[in-house]
Amino acid sequence: MRSAINIGMIGLGTVGCGALSILQENGDAIARKVGCELRVTRIADIDLDRERPVQFDRSILTNDAYQIINDPDVDIVVELIGGVSPAGRFIMDALKNGKHIVTANKELLAREGHSLLVEAGERKQDFSFEASVGGGIPIIRPLKIDLAGNRIEEVIGIVNGTTNYILTSMSQEGEDFGEALAEAQKLGYAEPDPTNDVEGHDAAYKIAILASIAFTSRVNVADVYHEGITSLTQRDTSYAEELGYCVKLLAIAKDRPNGMEIRVHPAFLPKSHPLASVNGVHNGIFVRGNAVGDVMFYGQGAGPMAAGSAVVGDIVDIARNIVCGATGRIACTCLDEKPVLPLGETITKYYVRMRTTDMPGVLAGVAGVFGENDVSLATVLQKTRGRGKNGQAEIVWITHEVKEENFRRALAKIESLPVVAQINACIRVEE
Amino acid sequence: MRSAINIGMIGLGTVGCGALSILQENGDAIARKVGCELRVTRIADIDLDRERPVQFDRSILTNDAYQIINDPDVDIVVELIGGVSPAGRFIMDALKNGKHIVTANKELLAREGHSLLVEAGERKQDFSFEASVGGGIPIIRPLKIDLAGNRIEEVIGIVNGTTNYILTSMSQEGEDFGEALAEAQKLGYAEPDPTNDVEGHDAAYKIAILASIAFTSRVNVADVYHEGITSLTQRDTSYAEELGYCVKLLAIAKDRPNGMEIRVHPAFLPKSHPLASVNGVHNGIFVRGNAVGDVMFYGQGAGPMAAGSAVVGDIVDIARNIVCGATGRIACTCLDEKPVLPLGETITKYYVRMRTTDMPGVLAGVAGVFGENDVSLATVLQKTRGRGKNGQAEIVWITHEVKEENFRRALAKIESLPVVAQINACIRVEE
Repeated sequence: MRSAINIGMIGLGTVGCGALSILQENGDAIARKVGCELRVTRIADIDLDRERPVQFDRSILTNDAYQIINDPDVDIVVELIGGVSPAGRFIMDALKNGKHIVTANKELLAREGHSLLVEAGERKQDFSFEASVGGGIPIIRPLKIDLAGNRIEEVIGIVNGTTNYILTSMSQEGEDFGEALAEAQKLGYAEPDPTNDVEGHDAAYKIAILASIAFTSRVNVADVYHEGITSLTQRDTSYAEELGYCVKLLAIAKDRPNGMEIRVHPAFLPKSHPLASVNGVHNGIFVRGNAVGDVMFYGQGAGPMAAGSAVVGDIVDIARNIVCGATGRIACTCLDEKPVLPLGETITKYYVRMRTTDMPGVLAGVAGVFGENDVSLATVLQKTRGRGKNGQAEIVWITHEVKEENFRRALAKIESLPVVAQINACIRVEE
Repeated sequence: MRSAINIGMIGLGTVGCGALSILQENGDAIARKVGCELRVTRIADIDLDRERPVQFDRSILTNDAYQIINDPDVDIVVELIGGVSPAGRFIMDALKNGKHIVTANKELLAREGHSLLVEAGERKQDFSFEASVGGGIPIIRPLKIDLAGNRIEEVIGIVNGTTNYILTSMSQEGEDFGEALAEAQKLGYAEPDPTNDVEGHDAAYKIAILASIAFTSRVNVADVYHEGITSLTQRDTSYAEELGYCVKLLAIAKDRPNGMEIRVHPAFLPKSHPLASVNGVHNGIFVRGNAVGDVMFYGQGAGPMAAGSAVVGDIVDIARNIVCGATGRIACTCLDEKPVLPLGETITKYYVRMRTTDMPGVLAGVAGVFGENDVSLATVLQKTRGRGKNGQAEIVWITHEVKEENFRRALAKIESLPVVAQINACIRVEE
C-alpha cells in the first residue's frame, strides 16, 4: 500500500491556486476517501515572486516545468497554464515519462487532444480534463460513465459565463451589448480583450470536447462553426422577450444520421427550456439521451474554487486508480469517425428582423419568397414605426425548421427585393 | 481478455424492462466502450407469463432468484424487485457468492444499506445504486468522484416526481390537493395508494442515501423527519405565489457543525432558486460544496428508460472494473459517524397563516409573542376578509431564521391567545 501520491503542478495561476487551496483545506477528508495522502511536491510557474492567495512551501516552486516532468517521484502532473504551446509538449513529455495527467486546457484538447489521449491510452495512463468544460460542474465523467448506456442525441450548453452575463444584463436591464460588456469588464467577468469569449472561440473549444465524448467521435475545433454575440442588439433581445424567448450563446451538438451538427451562436431559446433559467455567469449543460431523456447540469462555470473542484475531482479519481492498479481504466472514448456536417446542412428555425418599405403588399411579397424556397413560417410580427418620417416598417419573422442552405437562399432573394431596405438581424431559434 | 460479462437480473418489472431494452438497443456501442460484450444470461421474476414491452429469449426466465444467485457464470446481479425483503437476502447471498451488485432499491439502501456495502467493500466487490435516487440523473457517482474534493455543505432535492407533479398543478392550475392527486392518478403519475409518495416516505429514503454519501456518514431513514403534502391548501400555494415563492416537497440535508440536519417536508422556495424551475414530474438535486459552490442536477426522476439508463450506467462502470481487475475500487464512503440532529435543532424560516379576531391590537399582540420568544419577523401580510360576517382577519407571517424549538414554543403561546382563532398553516421557508 502506498503512503502517498505525489502531484506536480504546472501553472499556479487562478485555477492552480484554487486547486492547491482545496487540497490543503480538504486534504484530510480526501486522503481518507482515496486511502492515501495526496501531496503537492512540486509547482512550476514562470512567475516565482507574485503574491498568491494561498500559503505553501515556496521551496517547492520552480520556473522549470521539466523539474516536474522529469521528477521520478511525481505520479500526477496537473497542467494549468493553458494554451496549445508549450502545454502540449509538457503533457506529451510527461506522458512519456509515465505521468498521469490532469488538465483544464480546453484549447489544447479541442485542437490536439486526440494524439495526447491516444498516447495516454496506449500507456494505460490516466488523462482527465473535467475542468476544461463547465468549471466545477460534473459533465465529462457523467457522459463517460453514468450516461454510457445511452446514445446521446444532443448536447446544448451555455458554457461561457462571460457572454451569459452580458446577455442576461442585456435582457434583464435592457442594456446594449457595449454597456453590458463594459460592466462585465468592470466586475472582472470579462477580460480587457474579450475576443475569446464574445466571439465564441471559448465555447467552440468546449462544445468540440463535449461532442467528442457524447458522440464517441473526435471533433476538431477547426470544424466547429462559431459566431459571437457582438452584433446582438437590445432591440432583438426585447423582441425575444415579447415572443416568449430568451437569447443565449448556445454551444450546440447534434448527432444526425449523416453526421454531427456542431455550432456556436446566439440563439432564441424558449423560456420553458431548462437552460433558459441559467443566468448571469452560470453555466448549464443540457443533454438528451435515447434512454435517459433530458438531463441538465448546472453551476458555476468558472472561478478558482469551482474549476479547482473539478481538478481535484480528477486527481482523486486518478489516485484511486493508482491505489488499485487500474490506471488507464477508461481510455479515449472516440471509437467512431463521424463527419462534422457543413453549416448548410444545419436544420434549425430562424428569427429574422428586417426593415421594409411601408406599403401594401410588402409582407405578402416577402412571405411569398420564403414560401417559394420551402421556408415555412411560424410567426410574423409587423410593427410600423415612423410612418411618414421615413415610410418604413419593421417585420419580424420566425420560421419553422428549415435546412440552413435553403434559408440562406431565400434570404438572399429577399434581401435583393427593392421593398426590403435592410435585413437587420438573423438569429437561429433553438426549441 | 474476457469475451463477455454475464448479467443476471432479478425482477423484470418496469425498470427491469427498461434496462433490458437499453442493453439490447445500445448493446453494440456499450460493448465497444467496455471492451467486451455484456450479456443478460438469466432473469428471475415471480411472474413468468406477463406480456412485457421487450423481446427476449424466454428460456432464460426463471421464477427462482437463486438460479441467478448460485449461477457461477453470472458476474453482476441486478436487483430490481424493490422492498427490504427478500431483496436484502438476495443481495447478501449474491455478494457472498462473489457477485457484483446493481440495485435501484432505495428503501433497502436507506434501511439496511450499510451492512450490504460493508460486505461488498470487504470482498472488493462492486455495489452500485445510481438508479435509487433521481431516476436517470447522475448524482451518486458525481458526489463520490467529481465532487470528492469538496466538503459538501448541503443537498436539497426535489426527488419525488409524483408530489412535484401535484404541487406544480396546484400552483399553476390553482387546483386543490385532492383534485391534483386525482389527476396525477389518472395520468399514472401517482399510485392508487399514494401514501409512499405523498407522505414523504419515498423522499426520505432518497435523502438518507444522498446525505450518507454527501456527508460521508451513514444516515438511517428511521432518523429522518418527514412530513407529506396532504395538508397543503391552494390558499397557501397562492400566498406563496404572491410573496415570490413556489411550494415544493424538499428533501433537505445540511452538514451543521454539531451534526446532520435531515428532513423532508413541503417548503416555500424563492422563485429565483435553481430548484424553483423544476416542475411537473421532473427531479432536481441541488448541491452546495465548499469548493464548487452551487451545482444542480436535473432530469426525469422516474420512468423505465430513465431509471434503466442509470442501471446500465452502473453495469458499464462495474464491467470496466471487471475488465481491468479493479472491482471494489470505490468502497462505501461512510467514513464518519455524525449524529442526525433532533428536529428541534433545525434552523429555518417559517411561513405561518392564522385567523384572528379582527380588532385593534391583535397584530401587535401576536408579533409581541414572537418577539418575546426570539422569533424575528421578515414579512407580515394582513388581509381582512368577511369583516362584519364573522369578524375575523387572516394574518400571514414569514420569520427570519429561527431554531425550530424556539419557533414551536412561540407558536404554542400564540395558539393559546384568546384572539387567535386558528393557526391554519405553518410551512418552512428554504432560502
